[in-house]
Amino acid sequence: MRESPLRRALRVFEAFTVDHLELNLTEIARRSGLPISTTHRLVGELVRWGALERGPGGYRIGLRLWETAALAPRALGLRDVAWPYLEDLYHAIGENVLLAVRDGMEIVFVERLSGPGAVPVLTTLGRRRSLHATSAGLALLAHAPTQVQETVLSSPLRRYTPRTVVDPVRLRHTLAEIRRAGYAVCDGHMTLDALSVAAPIVDSTGLVSSALSVVVSAGTDHRRLIPAVVTAARGVSRALGAPGARRHSRSGVAG
Amino acid sequence: MRESPLRRALRVFEAFTVDHLELNLTEIARRSGLPISTTHRLVGELVRWGALERGPGGYRIGLRLWETAALAPRALGLRDVAWPYLEDLYHAIGENVLLAVRDGMEIVFVERLSGPGAVPVLTTLGRRRSLHATSAGLALLAHAPTQVQETVLSSPLRRYTPRTVVDPVRLRHTLAEIRRAGYAVCDGHMTLDALSVAAPIVDSTGLVSSALSVVVSAGTDHRRLIPAVVTAARGVSRALGAPGARRHSRSGVAG
Repeated sequence: MRESPLRRALRVFEAFTVDHLELNLTEIARRSGLPISTTHRLVGELVRWGALERGPGGYRIGLRLWETAALAPRALGLRDVAWPYLEDLYHAIGENVLLAVRDGMEIVFVERLSGPGAVPVLTTLGRRRSLHATSAGLALLAHAPTQVQETVLSSPLRRYTPRTVVDPVRLRHTLAEIRRAGYAVCDGHMTLDALSVAAPIVDSTGLVSSALSVVVSAGTDHRRLIPAVVTAARGVSRALGAPGARRHSRSGVAG
Repeated sequence: MRESPLRRALRVFEAFTVDHLELNLTEIARRSGLPISTTHRLVGELVRWGALERGPGGYRIGLRLWETAALAPRALGLRDVAWPYLEDLYHAIGENVLLAVRDGMEIVFVERLSGPGAVPVLTTLGRRRSLHATSAGLALLAHAPTQVQETVLSSPLRRYTPRTVVDPVRLRHTLAEIRRAGYAVCDGHMTLDALSVAAPIVDSTGLVSSALSVVVSAGTDHRRLIPAVVTAARGVSRALGAPGARRHSRSGVAG
């Protein structure tokens, strides 16, 4: 079946990545697998609308696409609600604070606050990660629909470090423990030098649709972080209008 | 001339606004002026790719479009560089801090930090404003190419309040004064209850491509804000690799 014009235009978007922020026409054509004439026409239309724009080193994603995307409730909408709580946490802890949402079998980080003294994190905004190797991913996976959990548990899981949990039996146990405790801890699961603590955020429909995490140096005593992370996540849940937020304030955010 | 399929798809994006974050098919068709069958097909393709997604109240801008847009250097890229300086300023002042870029004859706010005690601002992220009625807009206009300035000066200018500068002669004088002083002040130009101070940010090509502003209650002594705003804007310029940033540290950011 011939690909639709819209689908081809979306392939132009796919050519851009964190490592390829600016591309010339030939590069866009090559990376999207489109004929150069088609690429030329599509890029021209996208530039006229503002979805792409000319930069010093070629074409790049344009400001108007960003404006449109700023309307995505799961990214900037969530971020607007969560921001004061992330900021409080950032100031209480002085380390990396991240906000993540689950999209299918992956996690996407939609906000990051980090100070000059914070441990470097492998996470950039808008970059996808698998669910099993970060505390935010585990917090989201622990509260994901059963079908999502089973799919992940039955897939081959990438071992980022010797400490990544890749055994399905152990992972299932970890998820149950996260649901019981109300938070997730990863000590060296993604990179050996980092430890992270995450707590789930409950949205207005009562589902866990996002999670909040802090990333600190491995070896940090994470027990002091847990109450702060859980408190901040509960604050975001309440601000989102989570049902039973008042009850949760006595019985634990993870239910 | 018949509209291209891509142009029609982009009209679907245009249907979404800050006041219309979720729309059903009929609403998308009506707001984009497309036949319902075309809308149905385009929305289906956009959902499959992730540019739109289903929410509780209809279709909405999807997470994958946000991920793509996160690659826009003029929005989140700039924001990443500017964030520590915005944060410092926010903590020094405890009021609204905004980051704005110029796009053609308009200003787009790409970042906003605001605390619970801050004066409400009419500005939401990704919303466009004309250049002449905010301090950030004036700072950008003062350093825009002559052609942009002349176009704005010869256009009818909207009077938001009795204090908005709409007289071209007075506006031309204001712009010269902003270039001389290195900052812009608007006292009640957009809404009578707000005062804002802005300073231009110089990018690595030596051009003013963004501006930083603070918005406080009208009647605040703005003189105490000026050094903080200018210092923060200079910090962002230096972080962006502005040429002559070291020289500017003695002679004023506006040159």
